[in-house]
Amino acid sequence: MDLLTWVQIPVLALRGVFMELENVKGTIDELPERALLRERIADTLKGVFKKYGFVPLNTSCLQKFETLTAKGSGGEEIKKETYNFDDNSRRRIGLRFDLTVPTARLLSENKSVTMPLKRYEYGKVWRYQEIKPGRQREFYQFDIDIFGTKSLLAEAELISCAVEGFKALGFKEFKIRLNNRKLLKEMIKYSGVNEEKITDVFRSIDKLDKIGVEGVKKELEQRGIKKETPKIIEVIQISGRYDEVLNKIKKILGKNEGIDELEELAGYLNVLGIENQCIIDLSLVRGLEYYTGTIFEISAEGLNVSFAGGGRYDSMIQQFGGNEIPAVGLSFGIEPIIQVMEKKEEETATAQVFVAVADSTLKNEALKIADSFRKQKISTELNLSEKNLSKQFEYCNRKKIMFAVIVGSRDFREKKATVKNMLSGEETMVALDKLSEYVVSVVEEKKPKRK
Amino acid sequence: MDLLTWVQIPVLALRGVFMELENVKGTIDELPERALLRERIADTLKGVFKKYGFVPLNTSCLQKFETLTAKGSGGEEIKKETYNFDDNSRRRIGLRFDLTVPTARLLSENKSVTMPLKRYEYGKVWRYQEIKPGRQREFYQFDIDIFGTKSLLAEAELISCAVEGFKALGFKEFKIRLNNRKLLKEMIKYSGVNEEKITDVFRSIDKLDKIGVEGVKKELEQRGIKKETPKIIEVIQISGRYDEVLNKIKKILGKNEGIDELEELAGYLNVLGIENQCIIDLSLVRGLEYYTGTIFEISAEGLNVSFAGGGRYDSMIQQFGGNEIPAVGLSFGIEPIIQVMEKKEEETATAQVFVAVADSTLKNEALKIADSFRKQKISTELNLSEKNLSKQFEYCNRKKIMFAVIVGSRDFREKKATVKNMLSGEETMVALDKLSEYVVSVVEEKKPKRK
Repeated sequence: MDLLTWVQIPVLALRGVFMELENVKGTIDELPERALLRERIADTLKGVFKKYGFVPLNTSCLQKFETLTAKGSGGEEIKKETYNFDDNSRRRIGLRFDLTVPTARLLSENKSVTMPLKRYEYGKVWRYQEIKPGRQREFYQFDIDIFGTKSLLAEAELISCAVEGFKALGFKEFKIRLNNRKLLKEMIKYSGVNEEKITDVFRSIDKLDKIGVEGVKKELEQRGIKKETPKIIEVIQISGRYDEVLNKIKKILGKNEGIDELEELAGYLNVLGIENQCIIDLSLVRGLEYYTGTIFEISAEGLNVSFAGGGRYDSMIQQFGGNEIPAVGLSFGIEPIIQVMEKKEEETATAQVFVAVADSTLKNEALKIADSFRKQKISTELNLSEKNLSKQFEYCNRKKIMFAVIVGSRDFREKKATVKNMLSGEETMVALDKLSEYVVSVVEEKKPKRK
Repeated sequence: MDLLTWVQIPVLALRGVFMELENVKGTIDELPERALLRERIADTLKGVFKKYGFVPLNTSCLQKFETLTAKGSGGEEIKKETYNFDDNSRRRIGLRFDLTVPTARLLSENKSVTMPLKRYEYGKVWRYQEIKPGRQREFYQFDIDIFGTKSLLAEAELISCAVEGFKALGFKEFKIRLNNRKLLKEMIKYSGVNEEKITDVFRSIDKLDKIGVEGVKKELEQRGIKKETPKIIEVIQISGRYDEVLNKIKKILGKNEGIDELEELAGYLNVLGIENQCIIDLSLVRGLEYYTGTIFEISAEGLNVSFAGGGRYDSMIQQFGGNEIPAVGLSFGIEPIIQVMEKKEEETATAQVFVAVADSTLKNEALKIADSFRKQKISTELNLSEKNLSKQFEYCNRKKIMFAVIVGSRDFREKKATVKNMLSGEETMVALDKLSEYVVSVVEEKKPKRK
């Protein structure tokens, strides 16, 4: 770069010829490596969900702000975090902060949908929140929900489906934490707290992971709940195998709907052979205000992240003006799953074969060869650069493509092409009319077998 | 409902207990039938794209408004249609109106991405525009783009990939319209129009489909282009087989870069055997201002809709402050594709087998049976309602599930279950320990073979 150019840059910059356009803080831009992994995870989960009879359903990203902030949906905490604005016709619009509220809205309006409905939805949601590692303002959620049944078989199916999904992704150990809002409510009442303060207590307990027992104590006291605090702390420290915990609680509360529900659910998890991975944990609250019964969270054993969580919310759809439609759902934390898998995944090739062009007069022939491979269902990249052969090989290596077919003029006159194994360097001369057959055979042989 | 209830309703409504929450005008909510079709289309196209070596890349839905309105991106027309608002930290944010501009932004910032890059992206975009049949304010785009090469092989690959995609979706005939902005510019100049008025002329021609030749004439005259109009109208009526059109234009313009490019591209389409579906059409403009070379549109023969369109835009990424990265892209009109396919598609079952429960004390056993089917990769719905058997069959029929396995107490005592073919009504008694094997065999037999 000569002096004149250096002098010109600021002038051009002032004129806006060079821009430096950044992304919006907290939003997701993904280059192919991560996007490929995300797609593979989503496709694997979808395959499992379909086996359970789930079908897709898509809701709009734009919602009326009054839907997102309606009683029984997000609650006050979420309201502050919702991106919202007036559209050109002066309607207050918000970006969805989850997939549950828009689905409930949709079902409240479409009253003729056959129930029970088992649906999945995969999509982006937005929350204007503090950015931390693993927490962005734009992120994906992947939800499965069952609408139209109060049966606890629905909870069992969701949990079983999630466990199978995680296994399909290669995870081996899980911990499933269970609780029930009805039970928790009774236990908090039993601690001496008045009905109207229960939501406050839930909010404080929900912060246990972040602020610890001492923090929860302090918060409860700040909320004017003082003499009840020791008992509350005792309650939220109850956790363990379901039979032990339920026996303990039965002695305290006697007959209780929450206990019955947890017992029935535990029975189903027994049938499915996953009862040993389950504990009942009375400290589990799961922030959102709309839950009415079972709540659960699943994490991979040994990892300090929750991979999925959800619960029962039987009132939302009716509150939105729909029929009485009980519902239970589970949301997958796709971002933490990707973060964990990123560390153990090997990079994937973008194609199986690369068609290199040694002589630029042979572009037509190279295109024809690439086309013949694709017709055989072999994913093929054709050289699109004007670079020399060694630069083309470099590209091929960087993209982890295992075979290169080299189209050169001398070979071509003899109606042949060279197939190069990029890993071993081994080269084989193959007659053009046998080329696609040969490439199919070597590609099939080297195809990584997925476990 | 008794009188008291009827009297209470308005009161409750006033209190906001019953809400009627509607969706936002022009946005997409999709119930399972349509969502399933959309997913099948997207998966089919992705499969084809991968065969061509395309990889996914995901951009953020939220963009700085200055990115979306930067010179060389959307232009004035788009600016008016872009949803935009201040986020809580007073930054002007916009919802992306296409996938091209955000990708160009991403590549302008990430300068180390290996080129050429072949990427696909599938996602929602938003435009505040007039709502019409087939035109919403929230809609999906599915794009393939090739970055980092000026080679016209890239155009050929995109067109070939699109044609193969449409074939995979079941379409048989296509029409590919080609044009080139460099050529069109020269032809408009040849009509006597001054350089600075060319964009105006492009805008008017772009409306040809909507307003017809007379409308274009009138608009040109309103823009102060009068004496040149007859020649412009002559130019945009040139269309036909590439060899004929190119010969005609060569006689007018002599040597021209646009002609050379179209000739090279036609050669490649010849190699791919799709030259007969192609015409050159000088009336093709494709609104967006960022195109610099080839432009194209593909429609299914006999249908009056464009299924895909795109072109070359070699300057955008550099204008955004990135390296000089030439680019060519193609965007699929997923919405019109769905609309056409919706009419000819048969409804799909949500599962292969339904496990019906004749006796509610047998829920555990039913769950176990459903689990055993799923372990055999059979998609299975388990009855989750408290309804009687005939209601369960009704559900099964409505969801087009072909087999029901009935778990009843008498059968069960004999360690048997009944398998019912819901289409023929035929029932077969099967021993429990042979059940999943039997179901696998009948399901495999009835699986619809996809052509």
